[in-house]
Amino acid sequence: MTDSNNTWNRYQELLIRYPDLGFSLDVSRMSFSDHFLERIAKPVEKAFADMRELEAGAIANPDENRMVGHYWLRNPGLAPDDTIREEITAGLDAAKAFAKAIHHNDIITPDGSPFSDLLLIGIGGSALGPQLVADALVDIDAPLKIHFFDNTDPDGIDRVLDQIGHRLGNTLSVVISKSGGTKETRNGMLEAAHAYERNGLDFAKFAVAVTGPGSQLDELAKEQKWLKRFPMADWIGGRTSVMSTVGLVPMTLLGVDVDAFLEGAAAMDEKTRSLPTTENAAMMLALMWHFAGNGRGEKDMVVIPYKDRLVLLSKYLQQLVMESLGKELDLDGNTVHQGLAVYGNKGSTDQHAYIQQLRDGVPNFFATFLEVRKTRASASITVEKSGVNTGDFLQGFLRGTRSALAGNNRDSITITVDDVDAKSLGALIALFERAVTFYASLVNINAYHQPGVEAGKKAATAFLDLLVEVQRALTHTPQTADTIADTLEANPEDVYHCLAHLAANTTTITHTLSDSPATDTFTLS
Amino acid sequence: MTDSNNTWNRYQELLIRYPDLGFSLDVSRMSFSDHFLERIAKPVEKAFADMRELEAGAIANPDENRMVGHYWLRNPGLAPDDTIREEITAGLDAAKAFAKAIHHNDIITPDGSPFSDLLLIGIGGSALGPQLVADALVDIDAPLKIHFFDNTDPDGIDRVLDQIGHRLGNTLSVVISKSGGTKETRNGMLEAAHAYERNGLDFAKFAVAVTGPGSQLDELAKEQKWLKRFPMADWIGGRTSVMSTVGLVPMTLLGVDVDAFLEGAAAMDEKTRSLPTTENAAMMLALMWHFAGNGRGEKDMVVIPYKDRLVLLSKYLQQLVMESLGKELDLDGNTVHQGLAVYGNKGSTDQHAYIQQLRDGVPNFFATFLEVRKTRASASITVEKSGVNTGDFLQGFLRGTRSALAGNNRDSITITVDDVDAKSLGALIALFERAVTFYASLVNINAYHQPGVEAGKKAATAFLDLLVEVQRALTHTPQTADTIADTLEANPEDVYHCLAHLAANTTTITHTLSDSPATDTFTLS
Repeated sequence: MTDSNNTWNRYQELLIRYPDLGFSLDVSRMSFSDHFLERIAKPVEKAFADMRELEAGAIANPDENRMVGHYWLRNPGLAPDDTIREEITAGLDAAKAFAKAIHHNDIITPDGSPFSDLLLIGIGGSALGPQLVADALVDIDAPLKIHFFDNTDPDGIDRVLDQIGHRLGNTLSVVISKSGGTKETRNGMLEAAHAYERNGLDFAKFAVAVTGPGSQLDELAKEQKWLKRFPMADWIGGRTSVMSTVGLVPMTLLGVDVDAFLEGAAAMDEKTRSLPTTENAAMMLALMWHFAGNGRGEKDMVVIPYKDRLVLLSKYLQQLVMESLGKELDLDGNTVHQGLAVYGNKGSTDQHAYIQQLRDGVPNFFATFLEVRKTRASASITVEKSGVNTGDFLQGFLRGTRSALAGNNRDSITITVDDVDAKSLGALIALFERAVTFYASLVNINAYHQPGVEAGKKAATAFLDLLVEVQRALTHTPQTADTIADTLEANPEDVYHCLAHLAANTTTITHTLSDSPATDTFTLS
Repeated sequence: MTDSNNTWNRYQELLIRYPDLGFSLDVSRMSFSDHFLERIAKPVEKAFADMRELEAGAIANPDENRMVGHYWLRNPGLAPDDTIREEITAGLDAAKAFAKAIHHNDIITPDGSPFSDLLLIGIGGSALGPQLVADALVDIDAPLKIHFFDNTDPDGIDRVLDQIGHRLGNTLSVVISKSGGTKETRNGMLEAAHAYERNGLDFAKFAVAVTGPGSQLDELAKEQKWLKRFPMADWIGGRTSVMSTVGLVPMTLLGVDVDAFLEGAAAMDEKTRSLPTTENAAMMLALMWHFAGNGRGEKDMVVIPYKDRLVLLSKYLQQLVMESLGKELDLDGNTVHQGLAVYGNKGSTDQHAYIQQLRDGVPNFFATFLEVRKTRASASITVEKSGVNTGDFLQGFLRGTRSALAGNNRDSITITVDDVDAKSLGALIALFERAVTFYASLVNINAYHQPGVEAGKKAATAFLDLLVEVQRALTHTPQTADTIADTLEANPEDVYHCLAHLAANTTTITHTLSDSPATDTFTLS
């Protein structure tokens, strides 16, 4: 048997196809053997059992004593009780009804004109899903043009406002925060409100909240009589919230077929719930991650969709995978420092960037190609005498790169979908969500909390408190960071950074440079 | 001495400041000791010597028998001869003159109206630099609105054309390819030409070429009498071409202050040419990369600029660093599999994505924070009773995350600039270019070739050739991939992928699914 027959046989044997979803998963270029599958059979069984419990409403996030319900969002029948079932259906119906009212000009701006733009204010899980969906599915003919405040960068906020320009008076603002207390989002909301006010507009008449009932944001929206409030359930995590009101509200507003999106996800759930391991795409994906990194994240996952409109997929998966799997402790409290680093952009563009390293350099990764069969809606011109077109080249580059990586013993996975549409995108998101759930079980970690972000938030709060004190401590006499730190009994380096930041942003504070930060002085003029 | 005094002292001792550039580099949170610097002193000496030779015109890319001249672009006085010096100056002058003519309506569209949009057609080094610069420095008031064809994705091309819409008749197209033979760019050009023609417009009257003199693209542009041709020198690599005509032509057209950009780079070159190691930001950066990954790329570099307009920096550095350093062989021909993986987006947004893993998870990275002192052009509202504003929060999150990572023994570097402008961006790019040159010397590799991309290109070409044969082999009788592979004496898996691709994109080809790819049939109708 020749090499090419070997690879062809391996491809046939390992290929997982779901024709009704226009989906396939090819793990034939991952260098695992049957032995690996045998060795891991017991943990796989446990992972299936864990998934069944999770889907039935177990407290799958023990740290936060929470159920994990994102799989119910596309199949409310699974939800553990009627209240939750009704919550899900009500959220979807409300999103659709609101979007319909906006599209039909039943809800309009105070001056009587229709809404033209949508400003989404959110960060992390409250922005990445809508960003991915908008980039992948929304074209120029969408009912609203979307913009994002997804950071607390004032300059970035100003740029978005510049883009919106005179259309601010026709811009709907959707503020999304489950806790209702995320500072970046709160800041974005205040900046937006200020921009509306500056333009003589009443923010409340343009504002929509998506948040946990009773949250700070919810109370504010109620008090100020915002246009609309959508509830977000407690049992949904930010990074898996795209099928809750967090994603559904902007998606319906943008005209995305949310029913197809949910249907695609439900179908992928179904397939990867019932089928045996070697026909289960989500489990096989989780197993490949495990194989590649020895169950310890020893290799990075490089995600390369050969489709411009999927360029944000790697960013979306970066959050879904890294925030879920990057954990210090396992469920038994052992220190494990788990994780799986994810990066990537798009092919074939990335071939002109880092594929050099992937093929020749440090073998610290496995590639995940995303192939889309349909290349274009309309007919193509030919670009060579042979008759091939631009899309043929895209396909050729994908196949060529996969082959070149394999030729140098670099493993890769290829996921294929017939086209990028609401249904296939829903299915893809579900696939990765389930792979994350399975992988977390395989390595025995809680995929649904994020304890590691608290330290940074606390340190940031401490820094901001210090900033206020440092500002007050400035005088007309030049002082060093050490002097002020002594007065405040604070860390002198932190004081120095406060001072440098204040001086750069306050015209009345002078930073006099010297040979060393320790002798720099700061003066109030 | 307390911990905070320790860190403050280490910060003071290690901080490298270039006040005239508004720049500093803080490596105090990298856990190296003096011993590391002593141990590596000899390779550092050699790296400085290598840099001197490279800048003097040595064949620093021995594989391709080429000089490596990107440092001359911002200081033509360094160039090894007058011809090169004149080439550099002429390129800059020509770019400025052309942009001026466009801005002053001395060069206009055939119908007599001014140009409003700019379509840049290029990939890799011929797109990433202009993309970074445009996003970082160009605001809504730019003289032209920029768009990119940076792939061979027909759907992506259609989306860009949709964005341009009716303004195509006022769109200048700049086609950039050093070799003039890059297929993605050639395809983009043909697609663009077709779009102009479809709209009754003569592409040549809208087209500009930036390419090596005498290249295929150059000859075509000459023959078709394009609006303008700019030469690109042989001694410039794509990933370091942003200060050549590749970057200067789009930058001048967009109204960027290219003199300040080049000045910033020249100033950074100067500092990092002459100063001793511990005051040399580029060498210290290279040393930190070496320290973090044991000179073998064992840790990923996570780049997190706390500034929306620098979000593309990590993508730019991904190419610069990974394509330069990701090499199989060292300069002596030993197999080394070198490299340094780079990823990241922006802070504080990424804190809501993967910082969980960075803080708690697999310790396979070091962070590089990019801090921008000035937060906003105008005044800010306060967002808390204490008086802090949105920009203070951004600074607080940066400091908080740096501190949280350090608190869990995760190393980080912090680069600070006063503001993002043409000068500081030029300085930053120069800093990383020089760090790459130094690092390549430290690990004894050729940073200026990319032999690993050839295998993928060859395999892609073979696939496209096969595609044409497979299409011809289709008949009205159903055939399997194996049947056609036998006829063509080809790899059956490749044939299968050709068939599946053709069927998905050709209405006259039917793909009949079965239980296995081997028994799927394909028929011409």
